[in-house]
Amino acid sequence: MPEFLSLVTPEEALRRLNTHLRTLVGVELVPVVDALGRTIAGEVRSPEDLPAFARSTMDGYAVRASDTYGASEGLPAYLHVVGEMPMGKRASLTVRKGEAVKVHTGGALADGADAVVMVENTQPAGADTIEVSRPLAPGENILNVGDDIKQGNLLFASGRVLGPQDIGAMTALGITRASVFARPRVAIISAGDEVIPPEATPLPGQVRDINTYTLSGLVRQAGGEPMPRGIIRDDAAALEAAARQALAEAEVVVISSGSSVSTRDMTAGVISSLGQPGVLVHGVSLRPGKPTILAVVDAKPVFGLPGNPVSAMVVFDLFVRPTIYRVGGCPQPPLRPVVTARLARNIASTTGREDYVPVALEVKDGEYLATPIFGESNLITRLVRADGLAKIPLDKHGLTAGEMVSVRLF
Amino acid sequence: MPEFLSLVTPEEALRRLNTHLRTLVGVELVPVVDALGRTIAGEVRSPEDLPAFARSTMDGYAVRASDTYGASEGLPAYLHVVGEMPMGKRASLTVRKGEAVKVHTGGALADGADAVVMVENTQPAGADTIEVSRPLAPGENILNVGDDIKQGNLLFASGRVLGPQDIGAMTALGITRASVFARPRVAIISAGDEVIPPEATPLPGQVRDINTYTLSGLVRQAGGEPMPRGIIRDDAAALEAAARQALAEAEVVVISSGSSVSTRDMTAGVISSLGQPGVLVHGVSLRPGKPTILAVVDAKPVFGLPGNPVSAMVVFDLFVRPTIYRVGGCPQPPLRPVVTARLARNIASTTGREDYVPVALEVKDGEYLATPIFGESNLITRLVRADGLAKIPLDKHGLTAGEMVSVRLF
Repeated sequence: MPEFLSLVTPEEALRRLNTHLRTLVGVELVPVVDALGRTIAGEVRSPEDLPAFARSTMDGYAVRASDTYGASEGLPAYLHVVGEMPMGKRASLTVRKGEAVKVHTGGALADGADAVVMVENTQPAGADTIEVSRPLAPGENILNVGDDIKQGNLLFASGRVLGPQDIGAMTALGITRASVFARPRVAIISAGDEVIPPEATPLPGQVRDINTYTLSGLVRQAGGEPMPRGIIRDDAAALEAAARQALAEAEVVVISSGSSVSTRDMTAGVISSLGQPGVLVHGVSLRPGKPTILAVVDAKPVFGLPGNPVSAMVVFDLFVRPTIYRVGGCPQPPLRPVVTARLARNIASTTGREDYVPVALEVKDGEYLATPIFGESNLITRLVRADGLAKIPLDKHGLTAGEMVSVRLF
Repeated sequence: MPEFLSLVTPEEALRRLNTHLRTLVGVELVPVVDALGRTIAGEVRSPEDLPAFARSTMDGYAVRASDTYGASEGLPAYLHVVGEMPMGKRASLTVRKGEAVKVHTGGALADGADAVVMVENTQPAGADTIEVSRPLAPGENILNVGDDIKQGNLLFASGRVLGPQDIGAMTALGITRASVFARPRVAIISAGDEVIPPEATPLPGQVRDINTYTLSGLVRQAGGEPMPRGIIRDDAAALEAAARQALAEAEVVVISSGSSVSTRDMTAGVISSLGQPGVLVHGVSLRPGKPTILAVVDAKPVFGLPGNPVSAMVVFDLFVRPTIYRVGGCPQPPLRPVVTARLARNIASTTGREDYVPVALEVKDGEYLATPIFGESNLITRLVRADGLAKIPLDKHGLTAGEMVSVRLF
């Protein structure tokens, strides 16, 4: 039963897939306060100038800069304090030649003032007079109208995944509702005669489903909506029916099947029968994850994932995660959290293949130390004991203890 | 109005805070499939052996290893194939001397067999006979009972934050409900006479609330439950009443107040009046974020955060995030996603102070390039344009373009 896989590199596999991907979901309007992690649909421009008024960035006194020219410790400028600007108001206070108005950080600038002298650079000199011991340039310690963002300027391009600071920026501008892309629905099919649900008690030869639940969590982390479709027998007709149903109801279909050659061949056969353009990649120069199938059917991506949990996690990360973002309107997925770590032990690999090895991380001497957790890729506890996956690049013949390695955090 | 802050390093500040922190939340039982991101309460041990039966890790034939001793390409061993092990069952097949049973990856091992020969190392030799061209050691290509985890062994220690792979591990073991710590409630108070809600139209001198919403998102990302308490005037009695109410209803209290010295002093006064042990740190050698207040009142942490959005984000990340995990039962918060990047421009700093500068990241020549986004720390768009915060360590007098810098991703 020989394998007829023509392996392509992970990069080339993703490139082939990407040429067929486009946004597949609709747009919905949500309250901005509920939009964390959602992908913005269409560009967002500022409805107004921020700040809307000139503000002080320091505690001090609003002054006319020209009144301070030439001021020094030895020859300070003397200014008459004519009032204090209250927070939250712009009182009708005006700074005339030789005058100053007390102001707090964030407070509005008095009319006529064009700079703020920090309180640290002043000294009281009588009841209503201050000494200013250094000269100020116009605009110093001031935020002018629109310095943060100007009305009509771009706040976000379409496709941005909203972080906490983006929610804050929108509330600052009075934007309380946002158009976001709907979460892509990701159907998850677990195939295998030996697989039973978690609540069942295995008979001899049976194992409980892992991948439906691991993949559901990964889908959720990638901003998708997991649709677990249950366990399907190793039967081409049943798998095809389940896949067609999934294609009708979801934007992305993931089939996690046994890793035996016969099951893989059946899965590949079913996927290639679903429609056009069909299978784009069958076999990737990747370990674990070689038997991966990437397909597109009527614009919807379909993945055939190896059944081993470590393989499924690696393949999800490389191919399914960016795809969920792409069909969800985000062409450039958020950066994956990667740390650089020093390797505690050698890892063997083969040139021309990208390897991922679960590693445990600890902080030692101010840097991360990565200890590989070796074992079969069907051991789920390998992943439980690991903090992330170390990558051995395509062009490396393994890595030696002490070398730096890039680790994708879980 | 001089400042009397005795600055402590961020590390020392966190150490002081940590000595007062303990788990403050209760335990709840949730379905494992809904436990993603939750913190496990109490240790979890395996209720059974995994796998529960000896399994093949390859497609091939279950054999007695001793039958293959001495086998080579030139002098293969001949074995009689007596059946095929179906997936999901352990049929009553036995391998006797000179016999083999066909098996798929993940399939159960036939009785009497102690190794699996990969199909690639066999050749058909007549109807029911195979040639085996290499010798096998006992146990080769087999997972034995309990090789993944043994009954009674530790799966997780208490305090683990559950990732997708952990959910999969529990379902594999038939664990369908998990005891997790309740999400810590984090009350967020926004103080300032100039602050108005996002839906209001600012009058001259007023600004809309940013921090309530940015902080709510950050709390959610840290596994907490944000409880926004609205905007409180710059009035000690009102702030104290709000803080006492928040302490009664939440496990953590965050007060984001204006950055003027007077407001800060009032906030510090209110916090120190709430109870014992009170203010632990007032002033951190950190930029932005120097005026940070860390306090504990009746075991509950209370934070005084600077009002500037960049400062608030930095201080949240350094102090509030780990605190939410700690009071939520997780003594060792998940690693923060940090990438190492090459700096595109110089960043000035001062020895003895830890600086954080928003940077935009791009991938260039196979590494991250970090471009600092300079500006006042009250510009929310600085954060929107950035991908993370670059850290200039305490002992550095700035960093030079071309140096490597550690960047905490948003």
